[in-house]
Amino acid sequence: MSEASPSKTVAGRFFEDFRLGEVIRHATPRTVRDGDASLYTALYGSRFAPQSAETFARAIGYPASPIDDLLAFHVVFGKTVPDVSLNAVANLGYADCRFLKPVYPGDTLSATSEVIGLKENSNRQTGVVHVRSRGVNQRGETVLDYVRWVMVRKRDPNAPAPTPHAPKLPEKVAPSDLGSACPPIERAAFDIALSGSPRLFEDYAQGEKIDHVDGMTVEEAEHMIATRLYQNTAKVHFNQASEGQGRFGRRLVYGGHVISLARALSFNGLANAFHIAAINGGRHVAPLFAGDTVFAWSEVVETAALPGREDIGALRLRTLATKDQPCAGFPDGYDPSVVLDLDYWALVPRRV
Amino acid sequence: MSEASPSKTVAGRFFEDFRLGEVIRHATPRTVRDGDASLYTALYGSRFAPQSAETFARAIGYPASPIDDLLAFHVVFGKTVPDVSLNAVANLGYADCRFLKPVYPGDTLSATSEVIGLKENSNRQTGVVHVRSRGVNQRGETVLDYVRWVMVRKRDPNAPAPTPHAPKLPEKVAPSDLGSACPPIERAAFDIALSGSPRLFEDYAQGEKIDHVDGMTVEEAEHMIATRLYQNTAKVHFNQASEGQGRFGRRLVYGGHVISLARALSFNGLANAFHIAAINGGRHVAPLFAGDTVFAWSEVVETAALPGREDIGALRLRTLATKDQPCAGFPDGYDPSVVLDLDYWALVPRRV
Amino acid sequence: MSEASPSKTVAGRFFEDFRLGEVIRHATPRTVRDGDASLYTALYGSRFAPQSAETFARAIGYPASPIDDLLAFHVVFGKTVPDVSLNAVANLGYADCRFLKPVYPGDTLSATSEVIGLKENSNRQTGVVHVRSRGVNQRGETVLDYVRWVMVRKRDPNAPAPTPHAPKLPEKVAPSDLGSACPPIERAAFDIALSGSPRLFEDYAQGEKIDHVDGMTVEEAEHMIATRLYQNTAKVHFNQASEGQGRFGRRLVYGGHVISLARALSFNGLANAFHIAAINGGRHVAPLFAGDTVFAWSEVVETAALPGREDIGALRLRTLATKDQPCAGFPDGYDPSVVLDLDYWALVPRRV
Repeated sequence: MSEASPSKTVAGRFFEDFRLGEVIRHATPRTVRDGDASLYTALYGSRFAPQSAETFARAIGYPASPIDDLLAFHVVFGKTVPDVSLNAVANLGYADCRFLKPVYPGDTLSATSEVIGLKENSNRQTGVVHVRSRGVNQRGETVLDYVRWVMVRKRDPNAPAPTPHAPKLPEKVAPSDLGSACPPIERAAFDIALSGSPRLFEDYAQGEKIDHVDGMTVEEAEHMIATRLYQNTAKVHFNQASEGQGRFGRRLVYGGHVISLARALSFNGLANAFHIAAINGGRHVAPLFAGDTVFAWSEVVETAALPGREDIGALRLRTLATKDQPCAGFPDGYDPSVVLDLDYWALVPRRV
Repeated sequence: MSEASPSKTVAGRFFEDFRLGEVIRHATPRTVRDGDASLYTALYGSRFAPQSAETFARAIGYPASPIDDLLAFHVVFGKTVPDVSLNAVANLGYADCRFLKPVYPGDTLSATSEVIGLKENSNRQTGVVHVRSRGVNQRGETVLDYVRWVMVRKRDPNAPAPTPHAPKLPEKVAPSDLGSACPPIERAAFDIALSGSPRLFEDYAQGEKIDHVDGMTVEEAEHMIATRLYQNTAKVHFNQASEGQGRFGRRLVYGGHVISLARALSFNGLANAFHIAAINGGRHVAPLFAGDTVFAWSEVVETAALPGREDIGALRLRTLATKDQPCAGFPDGYDPSVVLDLDYWALVPRRV
Repeated sequence: MSEASPSKTVAGRFFEDFRLGEVIRHATPRTVRDGDASLYTALYGSRFAPQSAETFARAIGYPASPIDDLLAFHVVFGKTVPDVSLNAVANLGYADCRFLKPVYPGDTLSATSEVIGLKENSNRQTGVVHVRSRGVNQRGETVLDYVRWVMVRKRDPNAPAPTPHAPKLPEKVAPSDLGSACPPIERAAFDIALSGSPRLFEDYAQGEKIDHVDGMTVEEAEHMIATRLYQNTAKVHFNQASEGQGRFGRRLVYGGHVISLARALSFNGLANAFHIAAINGGRHVAPLFAGDTVFAWSEVVETAALPGREDIGALRLRTLATKDQPCAGFPDGYDPSVVLDLDYWALVPRRV
């Protein structure tokens, strides 16, 4: 036998390979290590206090310093790529993402995705797939849960179309569903000199806009190191030989890298918004490439108390990230510089 | 005393400095850390399940998640550079490399090399040195053992030539010598959904060729970060000021970086070949530079049972890596795109 | 309320915001992790034996392998940036820096700075601020302590000038003040084959010059990864969109990155100078940019016994780093290639 065996390699699923209700168990489980937390800091310069310091985390009520919420998100997301989006034309959106348990170095994350929506496009070349993905730790606890939808190529345009099914998605995660990944916070121990800002929940008001001021330029080595750290295998991020011939002529930065950059930049203005409790929605409005400089600003869309909790409140934030455009003027979603439009809930300690 | 003291610095050994039978103890021992495992993932995107997840490793029989075999190799190799190859003109080959014990984060590796071959070249400017290098852990156990040979400059062309001695090297490591770094594998616990492929030992046949499909572009920052991580001090990888004036006009990528890239790419097709048991031989056919995109394909040269073991079998693989050339056409060793030709044994679980 | 809220973001202090005697507690505490040690190796290729290997560190008397002294320095320095130097025109110098306790992975560092000097410049646009910064571990022990001075912009040129106050700074740290971060060294266990050099304290003499031979080219991704690892937020290192319009037209490499490069290069010639006990002074003579190759050489300015210690001695070293200029000719401080002029004490084992 000296034949080629293409069947041994993963070509990814095409649209007609997805079945409504199917649950996909993804490879490969991954232990989150101390070194991943260090690399996350090195890649984004993140400074939120509980994730930065064991002492701070323990003082306010965590058993240990958790990893950044988005690091857990990226690791889970990365696992779904080979099965869900290897043949994706576009990553269309996220919804109903809830962070349910903190993740600590030493935890092992694995992931599953359930197909919850299918709709062929009218051109019959592609279709939209909705999946609900779950990240689970070594004790079987779901640490995060989210919906994303992608446009996927058909292998065969003549393959029959499935009965269209569109999942019902909430416009936002309800405040009553927030906070399970956040232990009761010992507010008196939340030292605002150490956390980097005196602004607490009560200091933010609906409609308020915050320019995060700083900018961060992205290098090829950085976004590739990040994306490999998450074991995300999407080809468009790594292969200049093929992407050089492609639509953009260059490698595309993983959208999650942009989210993490925007979140790290948001420390300047939101230093005490230490935990992402949920992502209501998000769109990668335009692609980002190496050499681009990312800026960000946020609007407080809503403030909410959490039922039964006097320690923390939730800010619903809309964060826009731009490329090569400082955000002092708060460029809106139609501004050509905008690359990311993210709607999420962050938790902030309440004043004692 | 205000004289320069060149004697304090290491200029590296020249050909006439090596003595047959001499054993060199190398500096500096190095503790392999959790963070090294994270960086290895970040540099190559490696996804083999036992190295990725504590849970998976323990389920199948490891006491903990081992580091990637090649990370251990690179760390040991790095130690040998200042004493063996600082004045090397070329790294000619590897042989008889056996991985003898798993390495875990927290282990400290040190290295020795024995000079086992010497032969001056007819031009009297250079000679070929064979060394057998051993990596040893903090308990004095040899974790890996390999032969490499390098062409080394003479300091003085008139220095007398040693009696030529060529070591006997096996064409391959015998199957009976494989597997000591692999604990008995609990096959029922080897979850093929989590490991990323249903293909087990019985699914591979001699002569089979596998295109690993994906490509990975290399950046200067990446190969330098990797090579420093291994404390490899070879000047050609780091110094653009001198290399810009040199043979290639730019920095050369460490050959081991190419091996690790090819191995990580090979996951697509060889996901369950989770452990490198031995390297029979390897040649860096052509240099790699930043900006190049690496692809790879493998041929199953031989399949072998391991005496006394029903849990695993061995695949003898010949993996070729190319630059800027996808491998769907299985380019042979004479193709100008080929940069690496590696012959190794990988272990794969047998079907229960 | 739909107004912009610039007050939520940190604009940094201007000259008139500093008060003599004021003590600033800096955000954010940071746990130094195993992964930080790995990244430090990956960024600089550092090879000093006690920091590289647990076994070596424990054999000579450390309870565990300490992190590189400069990693501790950079982490503490990074904390001071948002409060001290965000509006700095220039980082003018360091003095009286003493390393007082070893730092181990798992330790959490926080920082304070006391304003110890203020002097408005005659142009009334800027002033010089001296601060004494202290890094403290989770037990409240000071691990390092240093003075630096920066030229800071005034927000309002008409703001009244403070009474000028210049702190008294020692020309050097006295030998009697060195060594508290270094446990008694078991010299018989200090294995010179493993440490990389046979040269001990007695082998170095005042006036001796050592070319460290090797060169290391810096990439944008590398210095940004390093500087974010230290949570240093100085804008000039990260933002090409703004720096492209600025004085140099490109991002500036963090001065501390240059110090770490020079220190790592100095292994070649000073392999047994395993601990930086103090920095007497340092100046960033010229800026460094990505693409530049760093070389270094050192002069032994002074050798000193440490009162009460027969295990180690101190070398006062002046290390100069250059860009794109090998140091075989020992270029002096006026050479246009020089980027760093550092005066420090390193400890070296004495001969048994």
